[in-house]
Amino acid sequence: MKNRFSSRTGWDVTESAFAAVVRGARASGRLLVDLTVSNPTACGFAYDAEAILAPLSSSPGAMLYDPDPRGIRSAREAVAGYYADHGAEVDPDALVLTTSTSEAYGYLFRLLCDAGDEVLVAQPSYPLFDFLADLEDVRLRAYPLFYDFGWWIDFAELERRIGPRTKAILVVHPNNPTGHWTAAAERVRLREICSRHGMALIVDEVFLDYPLRESEDAVSFAAGEQGVLTFVLSGMSKIAGLPQMKAAWVLTLGPEAERLEALGRLEVIADTFLSMNAPVQLALPGWLVARKGIQGQIRERTRRNLMLIEASEVPVLRMEAGWSAVLRVPGEAGELVREQGVVVHPGAFYGMTEVNRMIISLLTPEAEFAEGMTLLKGWLIH
Amino acid sequence: MKNRFSSRTGWDVTESAFAAVVRGARASGRLLVDLTVSNPTACGFAYDAEAILAPLSSSPGAMLYDPDPRGIRSAREAVAGYYADHGAEVDPDALVLTTSTSEAYGYLFRLLCDAGDEVLVAQPSYPLFDFLADLEDVRLRAYPLFYDFGWWIDFAELERRIGPRTKAILVVHPNNPTGHWTAAAERVRLREICSRHGMALIVDEVFLDYPLRESEDAVSFAAGEQGVLTFVLSGMSKIAGLPQMKAAWVLTLGPEAERLEALGRLEVIADTFLSMNAPVQLALPGWLVARKGIQGQIRERTRRNLMLIEASEVPVLRMEAGWSAVLRVPGEAGELVREQGVVVHPGAFYGMTEVNRMIISLLTPEAEFAEGMTLLKGWLIH
Repeated sequence: MKNRFSSRTGWDVTESAFAAVVRGARASGRLLVDLTVSNPTACGFAYDAEAILAPLSSSPGAMLYDPDPRGIRSAREAVAGYYADHGAEVDPDALVLTTSTSEAYGYLFRLLCDAGDEVLVAQPSYPLFDFLADLEDVRLRAYPLFYDFGWWIDFAELERRIGPRTKAILVVHPNNPTGHWTAAAERVRLREICSRHGMALIVDEVFLDYPLRESEDAVSFAAGEQGVLTFVLSGMSKIAGLPQMKAAWVLTLGPEAERLEALGRLEVIADTFLSMNAPVQLALPGWLVARKGIQGQIRERTRRNLMLIEASEVPVLRMEAGWSAVLRVPGEAGELVREQGVVVHPGAFYGMTEVNRMIISLLTPEAEFAEGMTLLKGWLIH
Repeated sequence: MKNRFSSRTGWDVTESAFAAVVRGARASGRLLVDLTVSNPTACGFAYDAEAILAPLSSSPGAMLYDPDPRGIRSAREAVAGYYADHGAEVDPDALVLTTSTSEAYGYLFRLLCDAGDEVLVAQPSYPLFDFLADLEDVRLRAYPLFYDFGWWIDFAELERRIGPRTKAILVVHPNNPTGHWTAAAERVRLREICSRHGMALIVDEVFLDYPLRESEDAVSFAAGEQGVLTFVLSGMSKIAGLPQMKAAWVLTLGPEAERLEALGRLEVIADTFLSMNAPVQLALPGWLVARKGIQGQIRERTRRNLMLIEASEVPVLRMEAGWSAVLRVPGEAGELVREQGVVVHPGAFYGMTEVNRMIISLLTPEAEFAEGMTLLKGWLIH
């Protein structure tokens, strides 16, 4: 009999050894100090629930189906306003709204790649990309980042990994979990390489609003000249701390002819799914206004927690932005759970090849974070 | 230079001759009688806006992100209740919620097919399938329906079109725009063929609740024995007349081992996107309750309009269910616009190979519908 299911969904979903340790510890009833919670709605921030929920039901427009494949214009104008706050002039018609950056990646992988085509992705980065690429038959090729008082792109290696089927370079800016910005000189070089090889640039900026310290590189790729076809992704999940609302977008920039061809095709893809409901699109402008309150709280939390790590003398890599910190801790994350009851993510989870890298969430409520750092320090000394 | 964009999105989106005629007529300022409006929110039905919108913002759960890749359990239980109303016992855990049946098709095509694999689709049917299949690198092969006092599957031809890479048969029940049910004997034969060839059955039941006359075939595929792996799709767009809310689902049925393997993989796919927002999932049970009011109005409208056609003596094929009617009218749809100012869909739009087939929407408000029928009749006599 033929294979019933596709090979592209033939993932090995066996539980990892580390996940089994955490599950076992939880099942035993042990109270764990969890330093991996990155869901902002579960971290004790004060949301203005009334301001966030009321716009979902207050517009009579929510009773009408009047689909625009790019999304309702008022929502796209509000997103253009977000970029104006970042010093970038954005045409609302260059935006396509999506239910998530995952959906936006799915659209872009299908737009740029046929089955078997390739996209270059930083290593380390977020492991979801593997699934997104498998589902569109796209092959990911990793380009290494290296750490040297901050993270840098290994451009020699990146160029070696470009083949005839490489259609795009994916950059997360600032990157997760390394928390570093793509430096100005790197941005220039990325554009030059994309231009030379006829590739597009995909830039995920979901953590753009979360600098941990001052940096002249904390600028959107949407600002300034666009020499190559560029797609900038972001959404409400991080910007407004509202992952449950499923509102994101892709912004298309670059030389006019290519940009318009890309937009035309993206519009047909979006029109095939029309995934975003009317109430969310109508509420989006209000959420962008409300973002500043929650962003302030998140920035304060992440910066304080980072100071707490530095004060604790647990070795930490230089973090510039985002919601994570990379610790340099000898030992194994499973042992840390068993011995101290502290949950962190092993660096390997994000494709870190060095041993002794552990990733923690700076969103963790401060009391729990402080307790975790104390336990970690105790483990290090012991 | 390499191709910048994928061939799978290299659609010809040139405007059709017919679309150009309609656009031209509209641009001239001419008032057209539009018999193609199938958007229920634009057809003058009385919705209970308060009951529909309030649940989006009234649940404190909408401020929490607690994602279940299959969807919030309370929503899945409500969908199981919908099937109970149709005499089918459905396990809420066999359901995966999606933002649209389009998304559900995308999940299923990826689950069942690798690039180049095939799915059998009825001809005539809805043209969106071509785009959905292209985007997942799936090849559609048409199996013909023929008309003989009602529509029937040409099983001899269907079997001839099954190849080694054919992974599923897609059935729309009742079909759009032919408005016919898959008869009991056909359902048995479809299952037998799927079983023999190791194929899955995909059944789109979005029009299930809209019979135009009594029929013993007006039953869900979810009812009764499931001898083969079967996916049943539906959603709020048609069931509750709420296309702007983007809430749909796929129900997985069939022999236990295959069913669980399918569900496990679907869950990973859904987990990669998590497209559905929390407010919509929380509001879905209320919309299923409210569906009865709007369904009553839609059924009354579609039945009256069908009677109006029959009274007008404009030749119409036998319609059993759904929101469309297929007319047998000599002439060309573009001419009808130019000469009478009446807009219908050419049959070719749905892949009808016979000439003289025109499709109209039974959702059209009654005064406009009556006017359109009068103009059509005048055209026929002339």
